[in-house]
Amino acid sequence: MIQGKKMLVVSAHAADYVWRSGGTIAKYIKNGADVHVVVLSFGVRGESNDLWKQEGATADSVKEARKKETMEAAAILGIQDIEFWDLPDYPMAPALTPEVQERLIRKIREVRPDIILTHDKNGEDVLNPDHNAVSQFVFECSIQSNSNGVRIEGTQTTKQMRLYGFEPHQTELSKFTPGSFIDITEAYEQKVAAMKCFKAQGHLIEYYTERAFLRGNHIRRISGNQTYKYAECFSNFFPTAGEELY
Amino acid sequence: MIQGKKMLVVSAHAADYVWRSGGTIAKYIKNGADVHVVVLSFGVRGESNDLWKQEGATADSVKEARKKETMEAAAILGIQDIEFWDLPDYPMAPALTPEVQERLIRKIREVRPDIILTHDKNGEDVLNPDHNAVSQFVFECSIQSNSNGVRIEGTQTTKQMRLYGFEPHQTELSKFTPGSFIDITEAYEQKVAAMKCFKAQGHLIEYYTERAFLRGNHIRRISGNQTYKYAECFSNFFPTAGEELY
Amino acid sequence: MIQGKKMLVVSAHAADYVWRSGGTIAKYIKNGADVHVVVLSFGVRGESNDLWKQEGATADSVKEARKKETMEAAAILGIQDIEFWDLPDYPMAPALTPEVQERLIRKIREVRPDIILTHDKNGEDVLNPDHNAVSQFVFECSIQSNSNGVRIEGTQTTKQMRLYGFEPHQTELSKFTPGSFIDITEAYEQKVAAMKCFKAQGHLIEYYTERAFLRGNHIRRISGNQTYKYAECFSNFFPTAGEELY
Amino acid sequence: MIQGKKMLVVSAHAADYVWRSGGTIAKYIKNGADVHVVVLSFGVRGESNDLWKQEGATADSVKEARKKETMEAAAILGIQDIEFWDLPDYPMAPALTPEVQERLIRKIREVRPDIILTHDKNGEDVLNPDHNAVSQFVFECSIQSNSNGVRIEGTQTTKQMRLYGFEPHQTELSKFTPGSFIDITEAYEQKVAAMKCFKAQGHLIEYYTERAFLRGNHIRRISGNQTYKYAECFSNFFPTAGEELY
Amino acid sequence: MIQGKKMLVVSAHAADYVWRSGGTIAKYIKNGADVHVVVLSFGVRGESNDLWKQEGATADSVKEARKKETMEAAAILGIQDIEFWDLPDYPMAPALTPEVQERLIRKIREVRPDIILTHDKNGEDVLNPDHNAVSQFVFECSIQSNSNGVRIEGTQTTKQMRLYGFEPHQTELSKFTPGSFIDITEAYEQKVAAMKCFKAQGHLIEYYTERAFLRGNHIRRISGNQTYKYAECFSNFFPTAGEELY
Amino acid sequence: MIQGKKMLVVSAHAADYVWRSGGTIAKYIKNGADVHVVVLSFGVRGESNDLWKQEGATADSVKEARKKETMEAAAILGIQDIEFWDLPDYPMAPALTPEVQERLIRKIREVRPDIILTHDKNGEDVLNPDHNAVSQFVFECSIQSNSNGVRIEGTQTTKQMRLYGFEPHQTELSKFTPGSFIDITEAYEQKVAAMKCFKAQGHLIEYYTERAFLRGNHIRRISGNQTYKYAECFSNFFPTAGEELY
Repeated sequence: MIQGKKMLVVSAHAADYVWRSGGTIAKYIKNGADVHVVVLSFGVRGESNDLWKQEGATADSVKEARKKETMEAAAILGIQDIEFWDLPDYPMAPALTPEVQERLIRKIREVRPDIILTHDKNGEDVLNPDHNAVSQFVFECSIQSNSNGVRIEGTQTTKQMRLYGFEPHQTELSKFTPGSFIDITEAYEQKVAAMKCFKAQGHLIEYYTERAFLRGNHIRRISGNQTYKYAECFSNFFPTAGEELY
Repeated sequence: MIQGKKMLVVSAHAADYVWRSGGTIAKYIKNGADVHVVVLSFGVRGESNDLWKQEGATADSVKEARKKETMEAAAILGIQDIEFWDLPDYPMAPALTPEVQERLIRKIREVRPDIILTHDKNGEDVLNPDHNAVSQFVFECSIQSNSNGVRIEGTQTTKQMRLYGFEPHQTELSKFTPGSFIDITEAYEQKVAAMKCFKAQGHLIEYYTERAFLRGNHIRRISGNQTYKYAECFSNFFPTAGEELY
Repeated sequence: MIQGKKMLVVSAHAADYVWRSGGTIAKYIKNGADVHVVVLSFGVRGESNDLWKQEGATADSVKEARKKETMEAAAILGIQDIEFWDLPDYPMAPALTPEVQERLIRKIREVRPDIILTHDKNGEDVLNPDHNAVSQFVFECSIQSNSNGVRIEGTQTTKQMRLYGFEPHQTELSKFTPGSFIDITEAYEQKVAAMKCFKAQGHLIEYYTERAFLRGNHIRRISGNQTYKYAECFSNFFPTAGEELY
Repeated sequence: MIQGKKMLVVSAHAADYVWRSGGTIAKYIKNGADVHVVVLSFGVRGESNDLWKQEGATADSVKEARKKETMEAAAILGIQDIEFWDLPDYPMAPALTPEVQERLIRKIREVRPDIILTHDKNGEDVLNPDHNAVSQFVFECSIQSNSNGVRIEGTQTTKQMRLYGFEPHQTELSKFTPGSFIDITEAYEQKVAAMKCFKAQGHLIEYYTERAFLRGNHIRRISGNQTYKYAECFSNFFPTAGEELY
Repeated sequence: MIQGKKMLVVSAHAADYVWRSGGTIAKYIKNGADVHVVVLSFGVRGESNDLWKQEGATADSVKEARKKETMEAAAILGIQDIEFWDLPDYPMAPALTPEVQERLIRKIREVRPDIILTHDKNGEDVLNPDHNAVSQFVFECSIQSNSNGVRIEGTQTTKQMRLYGFEPHQTELSKFTPGSFIDITEAYEQKVAAMKCFKAQGHLIEYYTERAFLRGNHIRRISGNQTYKYAECFSNFFPTAGEELY
Repeated sequence: MIQGKKMLVVSAHAADYVWRSGGTIAKYIKNGADVHVVVLSFGVRGESNDLWKQEGATADSVKEARKKETMEAAAILGIQDIEFWDLPDYPMAPALTPEVQERLIRKIREVRPDIILTHDKNGEDVLNPDHNAVSQFVFECSIQSNSNGVRIEGTQTTKQMRLYGFEPHQTELSKFTPGSFIDITEAYEQKVAAMKCFKAQGHLIEYYTERAFLRGNHIRRISGNQTYKYAECFSNFFPTAGEELY
């Protein structure tokens, strides 16, 4: 039952949440979930290679371009709450201070998510240390958010939510273990449209389009359900825990 | 939705399915699932240490005792279809011939299960080679059952079902990775009653009773649901694959 | 230096070598290598789902279709020595007898390969037990082939060759660890043409075409060489061992 | 307390127990342990490369040479009970029949060992499949030996003994995890003398001499005991379990 | 020989050492070991959920309650040297400064322990990042303590001691590998009494009581010693290294 | 083709690069490569145990001795560009500041290496936390160096180079996975001579001399090339990626 679910997505850079979970986000929104996105940085240093190739690019011009693109993409996916925290990146770890930590705990306690999507923690992104730092950071904030003793004025302790990790760019090199395949067929067109907002990154659009197709093959094979065409994949931070075997 | 689900349980020895999945089986039956059990051996050589300590025990007397006990337990759990294939055990591997393989494929195609429960395949039971042999065997049969080219008269190819592995006796020594915790609170009393049928194994009854309590602690912690009291745990042969994140 | 290299490819079923190493084979042949292929089975039971859907299909008709297709594919790749050993499959393990073992050792000693390509051994094909059985089998034959004490009339001991494992169909589920990415750009058209010989398996043609594209992205990223467009990936049975760091 | 300990060593080939545990065996005997050795094969096919290079070598001549050498080595180590079961090797797996299994269970029940030394089971010998087969075989026999239900006339069930695995030839390639380092300083000269019995294998003598030196460095570093000069290393099949932390 | 052994226990929060090593500590003291405990924090933020539920709880009231409870528990276990360093927790990592590092090195060099017990380092506590931070911290301090070049006035370099890791709360989710099972039967009553000092945490008392029972089953099974009733389990930071196989 | 290759070696302490890659460095230089070395610290606190045993040793005297020794060693290996950054060690992590990070990125962009050699990242040095910190640090700098958005005046973005990890001192305890064996026979004498510069560390000279011999055994076995006598071993940060199978 997606209807009524609350989801918080924490993205290290401006486009991560689109490439890796855009289909799931759009599907959840379409089916009545309440989705919130925090974008920690614009990825000016680490994920804007193509923009920097443009004549006269500056940190500011790159940031503006990234912001414009990601806001368009968010609108296409149907996201209504998106925040840009504008942290530095490459490296991002030094920017994840106690203050930013408290800010994220506060956000978690406000959203009170059933589900948090962020970067993978089971493996290790082989080519992007920021992703690893963010994964560990979000995880620690979620733990603290659930603890009665972590007192932040105006907030209330959460109960344990579920966390899932994005599939990284180089899946097999990053020791990523698939935990959940999600059919995104109904949201596929939206995802493709959202990806196309990142004009300078044509090769990634094709890459993630084809990955959705391959994951579609996998989800059909594993589920036996032949109506699934496209899928996204996530790692599970925890085992499933509930009323039945899923 | 448990209602209407079809489940096949394949147990290496006469009591494995009770210790390790008795609560889940009872819960599934109670909620309208259709559960079938295949017991490959009576565990005369490998899992009847206490019965052999009785004066004058013979292979036949041990087998009779095991059969009587497990049938009582099955009745308490509400199982209506249980088969005893009476294979030798310790070691069981040599008995898993092509004929037995075809027999199990046939059974799978008759039951057409949504779910197969059997011994764990992700890790390795550190003290029971039979469990490892059975796990691999059931897995291979399920693969063949799904293949159009495996022609067995009077049967029809199945589509991919889900497989889950029992938690072994020495969890941590057997590299077992929990994939699914299932709340068995409503079926707990039944499981305890079923376990008590194995009179000669009092220490195991206490052991698995306490394990259900510990797993209850874990499922509450992971799910945030405080109404869960007792749980069983399984490994997942495959990632979840479906409409949403569970 | 591909020129003059001798390569032996051992394929469990009729099309495995095409999907998973067709580009590498064609490239090696084009550049002067001497490539030999052994196809252990036609995959009648395990890898011919679509052929069995045809009205009136029999084991013989399926086998004929598979053979015709794979011979066409082999011709397109430029393979001149291909043998069909026509073993049963699904399961194949029981067919890998001491006689077949001796036959393969003899073949290895005749070809005297620098390189053996076969199914992956580092991980475990999560959905195809035949692939795992063949991998272990080929590995053991290679070890015996290198041993002076394994006396087979008319043959001569080989020295240690290099072994590489095919990327399986469900890479991430099969614990596959990429060891070597090979640029197949110059042989890509040949591979696509060869794949198209397997008419009943259109979905696989698309699947492996897109995988070559994704692997192309990876090889560019890892090597820094932007001229690579398409790639295949293999696991390494052994570390590299030689004159320099590759 | 070595005094009074009973040890059973099961060696796949004629020299394995010398290269990999000769120092530990000699030390145990010297300190009052009761050591029994079973040599499953003479290693005629798999571990006699150098003997086969001799003019006119035959299976019989090689076997004789191996037997003579290993008996001399055993005598130097102080071994009084050594049995040669003369199984074929390369491959050995097919020879490990139910009959051989019963024979080894019987042997275990006769010796009633506190300790079994055999090939490693935690990792996988990357270049010697026989070693892996023997490890699994010995392990299964030990499990059966401990089971009341495994009835073999004239024998009595054992209680759980401890099992340790030999360090393989290519440690790092074989995923070997060191569990126990044993100081063999007092038995080092004996081990070197015993190794020298295998005249045709000079390179191995030097290899295992130097390994004892490197392991000596490791045991000093880990234990802080600077009197240790030479060591052997084993994997642990089980955690330690007893009165204190070792 | 426990008599005369020196042990240092480093606990992240006020009760960790009781739940996870209380039996071993009490047993070691009873048998003549010299045990010292450092409690890094009172766990006010991270491990006092139940105390915060009390009306009018403040950081100070929680801290006082925790301190009183843990001192009672320590007295029951027979601990004579216990220090409270009163660091902040949740997160603790930022508090593990160079000054605290030097303080711990100094402590290690004063105690000169044969054994250090602290949080597990082989796996990763899945729900408590503080535990992971402390494990790494203690490990690094021990390494530095052993190094001649780390000059701290009034102290003297130690030699390599042995380190063991606590079993975490969610063993199986935390990739914990058991290295040592310790029989705590003779100290079990003391441990239960000590746990009962933490009045607000009744569910944990039951949890760790039952875990001691399960570990008792395991230690009997692995050691073959039927007199063991209750046990604690630790990971080994290093292989055993000494005179014999334990 | 070593000729013309550019290599950057980053060594945590003054002698690491000699023990672990001295043969490879000398060989590369001899064959026309351009090799640059950065030594981050003199290892005064962590790797000068023997020097501190000398009467009257001070931090300055130890540093001078280390510097003199390592410069002699570098000269013997033929290194012309070596820099000493004189960071503190034990622990080194706090010294790896953003400024040092920028300094290393600048160095990488100046050298523009095809190959970076540094400490291993796949495993974890079990006894030297500095090595782990440096490995992660160098890796992150290499990633940033390749990113267009990381703007450092006077430098130009690099393209992806290859990274290899040193074999640590306790290979098997450090989860080191060999990726590449390099024949160093032609440079062996130079390596031995260079090692002998570290006069106070006689035991290490013998240790690494014997390790080169053992690795020689391995490289012959794996490559089948009997002319190799001595070797060094490295882990691969990435799979090979190129024109053929190496």
